[in-house]
Amino acid sequence: MSARSGVLFDVDGTLVDTTYIHTICWAQALAEAGFHPPMARVHRAVGMGADLLVGHVLGADLDPSVVQSITDGHDGRFEQWYDDVVPLPGARSLLAHCAGRGMAVVLASSSSAKDLDAMRRALGADAFVTAATSSQDAEQSKPSPDILAAAIDQAGLDPDRTVAVGDSVWDAEAASSIGVEFVGVESGGYSRAELQDAGAVHVGADPLALLAAFARTPLARLVG
Amino acid sequence: MSARSGVLFDVDGTLVDTTYIHTICWAQALAEAGFHPPMARVHRAVGMGADLLVGHVLGADLDPSVVQSITDGHDGRFEQWYDDVVPLPGARSLLAHCAGRGMAVVLASSSSAKDLDAMRRALGADAFVTAATSSQDAEQSKPSPDILAAAIDQAGLDPDRTVAVGDSVWDAEAASSIGVEFVGVESGGYSRAELQDAGAVHVGADPLALLAAFARTPLARLVG
Repeated sequence: MSARSGVLFDVDGTLVDTTYIHTICWAQALAEAGFHPPMARVHRAVGMGADLLVGHVLGADLDPSVVQSITDGHDGRFEQWYDDVVPLPGARSLLAHCAGRGMAVVLASSSSAKDLDAMRRALGADAFVTAATSSQDAEQSKPSPDILAAAIDQAGLDPDRTVAVGDSVWDAEAASSIGVEFVGVESGGYSRAELQDAGAVHVGADPLALLAAFARTPLARLVG
Repeated sequence: MSARSGVLFDVDGTLVDTTYIHTICWAQALAEAGFHPPMARVHRAVGMGADLLVGHVLGADLDPSVVQSITDGHDGRFEQWYDDVVPLPGARSLLAHCAGRGMAVVLASSSSAKDLDAMRRALGADAFVTAATSSQDAEQSKPSPDILAAAIDQAGLDPDRTVAVGDSVWDAEAASSIGVEFVGVESGGYSRAELQDAGAVHVGADPLALLAAFARTPLARLVG
């Protein structure tokens, strides 16, 4: 089959409103282990792989068992929030619009398979999704591009006709490092300037804003 | 007495790490009332007065009883977090440093008196504090400058030798509208560019960063 055009969507903070929940869950797990980094610093680390986040936030190499305990603390807390996860405005409609225009819609998440399942249930847009990745699909998490490369591979995409959409500078860095154009949304709480500085060629407030501006975004060149 | 130099410190997100807690509490209270605005939008509204926040976030005039019910929902939830409130890095040391250099240290908060008490307990810096305001001290909340004007009045400050420190664009707007120089901290999760765009003449990551850069901040001109 010939390679097709597609959109790689990050999920957390891009399609579902989970970034602030993750921030609180990480902050609580860190506090339980005796660490109190500013939550704004934790917030800005959400979107990088969970395996990298603790070391990044604390700026220190910790005993792997401590990191594991903090990660488990986050994961257990986040599960308690599954029923509170809601789609971001326009998320389903944007996926439907892309799929309806012939693009492959790929969920390029580095979340755990369990978290991703919960977020997909909240999103309720599986009918429009061609493929999806989770943390199991790549050796290295974001900002490494492994997840995006796996997503491109799984969906048989042409990288030159692929755009990545995400809410974090880690998404932007991952896209940039394999030459995929990046579109940002502010719904994860990173500001427009932060996303632009990280390489975003277009930034919208949320998926609904991307849909409303569709013709002016890089997504429009993928149609047909 | 002759008017003295002083620093007006916002408290939430500036001295104690509460912005993300407020964000989650507001999001939960809004969800309970059937509203699901993106939490990033809620986050960016924290720091404006609670009386203005709901209308700003939802972009609509609601029945006052609905607004009150959402506000009560937030307030009740936030109280549950009192024991988890921690000072931001360097917060106590920065207040001690300012007080030790002869400046009046004024807490210019628009929080409720009850929340402010809890935050002051967490901060543990009352020995360095000259005066403090709460929502009871002003007719209009931030971004109105009423709170800052009340703080200047209470502490007998010379506005020309007064600097305001805060984490939100609402703090910056309040300071700007009465001609008080504004210094920002990123610990509330607003980015450097957002604070600069709102008028900050200096931005640090958190209170510790302001202390480390003290001589290069507008605070240094208040010494002595």
